[in-house]
Amino acid sequence: MRILVANANTTVAISELCAAAGRAVAAPGTEILPATPRFGAAAISTRAENIIAGHALLELLAEHAGQVDAVVLAVSHDTALEAARQIMPCPVLGMTEAACLTACMVGARFGLVTLGGVETYRELVGRHGLSGRLAALEGVAATPQDAVREPERVRALVAESIARMVAQGADSVILGGAALAGMAARIPDSPVPLLDGIACAVKLAEAMVGLGLPKASAGSMAPPRGRQVSGVSPALESLLR
Amino acid sequence: MRILVANANTTVAISELCAAAGRAVAAPGTEILPATPRFGAAAISTRAENIIAGHALLELLAEHAGQVDAVVLAVSHDTALEAARQIMPCPVLGMTEAACLTACMVGARFGLVTLGGVETYRELVGRHGLSGRLAALEGVAATPQDAVREPERVRALVAESIARMVAQGADSVILGGAALAGMAARIPDSPVPLLDGIACAVKLAEAMVGLGLPKASAGSMAPPRGRQVSGVSPALESLLR
Amino acid sequence: MRILVANANTTVAISELCAAAGRAVAAPGTEILPATPRFGAAAISTRAENIIAGHALLELLAEHAGQVDAVVLAVSHDTALEAARQIMPCPVLGMTEAACLTACMVGARFGLVTLGGVETYRELVGRHGLSGRLAALEGVAATPQDAVREPERVRALVAESIARMVAQGADSVILGGAALAGMAARIPDSPVPLLDGIACAVKLAEAMVGLGLPKASAGSMAPPRGRQVSGVSPALESLLR
Amino acid sequence: MRILVANANTTVAISELCAAAGRAVAAPGTEILPATPRFGAAAISTRAENIIAGHALLELLAEHAGQVDAVVLAVSHDTALEAARQIMPCPVLGMTEAACLTACMVGARFGLVTLGGVETYRELVGRHGLSGRLAALEGVAATPQDAVREPERVRALVAESIARMVAQGADSVILGGAALAGMAARIPDSPVPLLDGIACAVKLAEAMVGLGLPKASAGSMAPPRGRQVSGVSPALESLLR
Amino acid sequence: MRILVANANTTVAISELCAAAGRAVAAPGTEILPATPRFGAAAISTRAENIIAGHALLELLAEHAGQVDAVVLAVSHDTALEAARQIMPCPVLGMTEAACLTACMVGARFGLVTLGGVETYRELVGRHGLSGRLAALEGVAATPQDAVREPERVRALVAESIARMVAQGADSVILGGAALAGMAARIPDSPVPLLDGIACAVKLAEAMVGLGLPKASAGSMAPPRGRQVSGVSPALESLLR
Amino acid sequence: MRILVANANTTVAISELCAAAGRAVAAPGTEILPATPRFGAAAISTRAENIIAGHALLELLAEHAGQVDAVVLAVSHDTALEAARQIMPCPVLGMTEAACLTACMVGARFGLVTLGGVETYRELVGRHGLSGRLAALEGVAATPQDAVREPERVRALVAESIARMVAQGADSVILGGAALAGMAARIPDSPVPLLDGIACAVKLAEAMVGLGLPKASAGSMAPPRGRQVSGVSPALESLLR
Repeated sequence: MRILVANANTTVAISELCAAAGRAVAAPGTEILPATPRFGAAAISTRAENIIAGHALLELLAEHAGQVDAVVLAVSHDTALEAARQIMPCPVLGMTEAACLTACMVGARFGLVTLGGVETYRELVGRHGLSGRLAALEGVAATPQDAVREPERVRALVAESIARMVAQGADSVILGGAALAGMAARIPDSPVPLLDGIACAVKLAEAMVGLGLPKASAGSMAPPRGRQVSGVSPALESLLR
Repeated sequence: MRILVANANTTVAISELCAAAGRAVAAPGTEILPATPRFGAAAISTRAENIIAGHALLELLAEHAGQVDAVVLAVSHDTALEAARQIMPCPVLGMTEAACLTACMVGARFGLVTLGGVETYRELVGRHGLSGRLAALEGVAATPQDAVREPERVRALVAESIARMVAQGADSVILGGAALAGMAARIPDSPVPLLDGIACAVKLAEAMVGLGLPKASAGSMAPPRGRQVSGVSPALESLLR
Repeated sequence: MRILVANANTTVAISELCAAAGRAVAAPGTEILPATPRFGAAAISTRAENIIAGHALLELLAEHAGQVDAVVLAVSHDTALEAARQIMPCPVLGMTEAACLTACMVGARFGLVTLGGVETYRELVGRHGLSGRLAALEGVAATPQDAVREPERVRALVAESIARMVAQGADSVILGGAALAGMAARIPDSPVPLLDGIACAVKLAEAMVGLGLPKASAGSMAPPRGRQVSGVSPALESLLR
Repeated sequence: MRILVANANTTVAISELCAAAGRAVAAPGTEILPATPRFGAAAISTRAENIIAGHALLELLAEHAGQVDAVVLAVSHDTALEAARQIMPCPVLGMTEAACLTACMVGARFGLVTLGGVETYRELVGRHGLSGRLAALEGVAATPQDAVREPERVRALVAESIARMVAQGADSVILGGAALAGMAARIPDSPVPLLDGIACAVKLAEAMVGLGLPKASAGSMAPPRGRQVSGVSPALESLLR
Repeated sequence: MRILVANANTTVAISELCAAAGRAVAAPGTEILPATPRFGAAAISTRAENIIAGHALLELLAEHAGQVDAVVLAVSHDTALEAARQIMPCPVLGMTEAACLTACMVGARFGLVTLGGVETYRELVGRHGLSGRLAALEGVAATPQDAVREPERVRALVAESIARMVAQGADSVILGGAALAGMAARIPDSPVPLLDGIACAVKLAEAMVGLGLPKASAGSMAPPRGRQVSGVSPALESLLR
Repeated sequence: MRILVANANTTVAISELCAAAGRAVAAPGTEILPATPRFGAAAISTRAENIIAGHALLELLAEHAGQVDAVVLAVSHDTALEAARQIMPCPVLGMTEAACLTACMVGARFGLVTLGGVETYRELVGRHGLSGRLAALEGVAATPQDAVREPERVRALVAESIARMVAQGADSVILGGAALAGMAARIPDSPVPLLDGIACAVKLAEAMVGLGLPKASAGSMAPPRGRQVSGVSPALESLLR
């Protein structure tokens, strides 16, 4: 089974980091293929960068349509998820979506911790219709750079946040954003399971491939046909036509 | 990997039917173990039977605690799901829960069709916090007996229901209840994917086992300790103590 | 009028405590009959114990079907409430349900204070469809044992919690759980009414008996007929048949 | 016990009709006192008439403050309910509110049928925070005049509406508006209980009086003090001062 | 264009204050006409005063029906808004409603700060169906009198509240209540836009007049006809007839 | 005042059509500037085309940043609305957003009719947090081509849909999508106001410009700074840097 781990940032190192996280949990027969978009933000952190990334991601996916068994979107905003799902002939999973759905299988309500602002995460959980299962949402006052330079300080801040969210009813905590990759292993005494989006998405992608569901021919996920789109990559143009 | 497919009805034939549905999608290394409770309804169809089944199911699970890698509850009401999740040291999946979460990965909103009344399904989707993703809910006017005696008529009714729900915005349709087992294969031209709860649950259970999350030590899923419970099976009493 | 106050814990003392709370508000012609289940937890505090209690409670009720005018479930989780309502020929009230509905008649939003964890209460209010009326939910850091050993300390903690919840918009506060029985009388200067579940349930049960509504013959509360259930008490088996 | 049944329409016949409905279910020691406002609509049917009725109702209640044990608002819009609750020293119940809360004790979800438009009922159920328990809402195409002139035709229309709502999941049906008073007795074979707002409100008012809860001294139901209001009746002005 | 700025308090000074706030943003051709009701509270602060104000406001509006192009309700409770909208032949805007809708055009979620209690604001935002866009709601511990006597202290409290609400996700903050009129200008360094209800309402009223939508002839906003209402002002009686 | 009417489809004729609709309601001093994106779909009708359009739209807007007083997004999906709002120094309105907010000022609940599928509209209303105000949503079985070839048939279908939605509680109806431009004028006897998104957006944009609110310096709408984005237009790259 071939799973494309498609980054939406243009930083190849993040793609590799995510691929490694995926390989750590992938089944023996699963091959993880990292991919990086042609254009966009080095590290998405604004609404506009996320919109641009949506286009870049669809172009990236179009190049692999038919050549992979599943796609994992390696971007915590689940950028362009529904559109990717519509155009691709295979299952597509968002990493935060996957973490949220996994959290639903772990316990009643979940928390989510990230570095920096949380509003787009709140909107994202709402977009997935899961606001009722969100116990708490915290943004630790640290940047991704801090996470590299002062790992122990950031680790402590995250651990404190987890404890607060458990007190507010979280049965698990999602680690949001690439900057917290690997953090679960560094908080082994967490009182609740810590969920890494890429890991969750790879396992759920394997499950979806195993189910072998057919592609919809009607509804909002039926593949586009005969669409005329100019100024996009040949692969994407072709997929929409 | 050993997955217990735990029926909550006392009819062994249903347990076997569900186990077969699970084996049809299980990964090569996955062993499916059917189990049937010691007491309760032959086929749950009222609120009271479902309550009784909860107790019977916990006793059944307690006998297998530590001996299986995951549990699938083979009962469309996801009976005692949260309690089972709390006491068992391994992942526990409900079949309707699993179908709902799978539907979330397939498209935007989903439908659910069953034979007979739908209110307990509506409550169940609400209990999982997923009412916002439910496009439609239909109960076909037929009994499980009809499904056996007049399979073609019931098949036609279900297909019509699916078409109506797609028109109302369903990107996938869950086949609710054991009586619709195997129906997906008989409607190959469905415009959207049809989801079988057991199949979904087995694949998600494999995914959860693969993730290898630790058991919570706090929160509403922390395992019970030192509880004094009388009049239940020794295995269950022991698990709670 | 005979009202069965049915405990779901196996501790007779709790049944008696609840019966006394009921008698304190019962109308002159109302007889309060305490009852204790045959099996289950001494004091329910986990999800699994609550599931077991559901079965035990239905058996207990079945023994009294036709012999009482109403039932009050003397367990703060409103265990098996909907099932009990379906099978019994008379009104059935849950104590927390009754407190929530009473709170709706007292003011706009309400608070709920209990000893220990609050997540199952949050779920319970949601199950009753009343989350929008819940202003605050607090678990005081004390055990039922503390309430006995250090009554003044626990009283002070509860009073502080009430004050906080009033500041958050609570027009009344529900005292959740048997361990807080009698607490209302000990906080006479509370700024908002304090609601005891048993008292509320007994008065609402009297009201329901007075209304004299017929039993539904359709819908999710129509009594079961012809159900085959094995391994349960003769009275329950008979009621379902 | 003295219960004021306060109409918000200026038609005395409606007040008497409602009082009779209340007397039919009142406990032996309960005295029902009808009252009619000094000004306003003969029969409220627009938003503006309802606003005017709010003022008239508060003036009416102020005259009885301290002289009755409870108040039932005999107007299906639950006009000025929260304000009445705040200023009166005794329990105040709205008739539709009471029917909705009673419906919550009867089953899972309820329906509501009325003559004419339904939007203000939808808003009212939402104002009470109970939209999640509303299964269906139907306005029969008939006027209150029709109900008098062609009672059998209207009865049939209502019965058909009830059947449709039961099919949509209603475990009980509220008869909304004074024009449907007495309709429950004329549909004895209804598959679910039919709820009359006045009857429900009188029984719940008796229950609230029996509970004997103190008046709030804080929160949104604390009685007004020192308010300067001009141009209203002396009794109301005095109550607010 | 003539816009009636209709106060619901009987204090003329407040009417003038609101009119001034409206004139500060009105387009060159817009005339702002302040109006004060004939009876009611000097300054509404309880539920009962608000009910009385509804009647007074409808009488006030009825006198101007047909003579103004739009109405702005200069009362933070949006008193009688829907009724006013139904009876008037021109657009009617509530000041808090207008601020909420403007906030929706400014950013994702908004905060609201006021002096004193907040529960009626919470209910108001819910009545407008906008609870999902409310990030935070704070009542500063100060009275309108304090705002006059200790303006700097109150300004500092409001600024602190704004900062807290921005941290909770507010992209703008509504200044609720006449006592905060002019506060926006005194906090020029606010990190997010501050919204004054009168200013928002006047601009939206101009927009609505510019759109020139016809009056509904059906639905819940169709004008009343043939209603019999006694004891109200001749203008209002006439408008309803 | 200069308002950019920015199409997200690449068809210039649609841009002109929308500009004309805007000019029809614009105030005397308002200049309407149509604009068409450099790449993307001729007419967006799938999720993928909408994602691509988001990028194209941001590039289009970036070219006009600082040169216009407001922006109206002339695309019924409100494509990239929040991102556009974040990066632009002036107010940005979505046409469907504007119609929804206008509907909130017209009456209680609204309907929306369009040609073809409705699910993305349902999601859009939910994204704006206004699902509670949506009474009905209908997709007429006709294509934009039909609207040109058989205008009378489509007009009749739309009128029938409006009537059905009014019966379901709509106090106004939004005409969704460019294909229904001008339809309001062709249904002059509509029982409720019909709302054209462009017209609503232009008037609300004028109102927002008139309010003169400052740009946020914090929160989710604070302008991006120092972002590194490659492969986008120089204007957009510069705006993000």
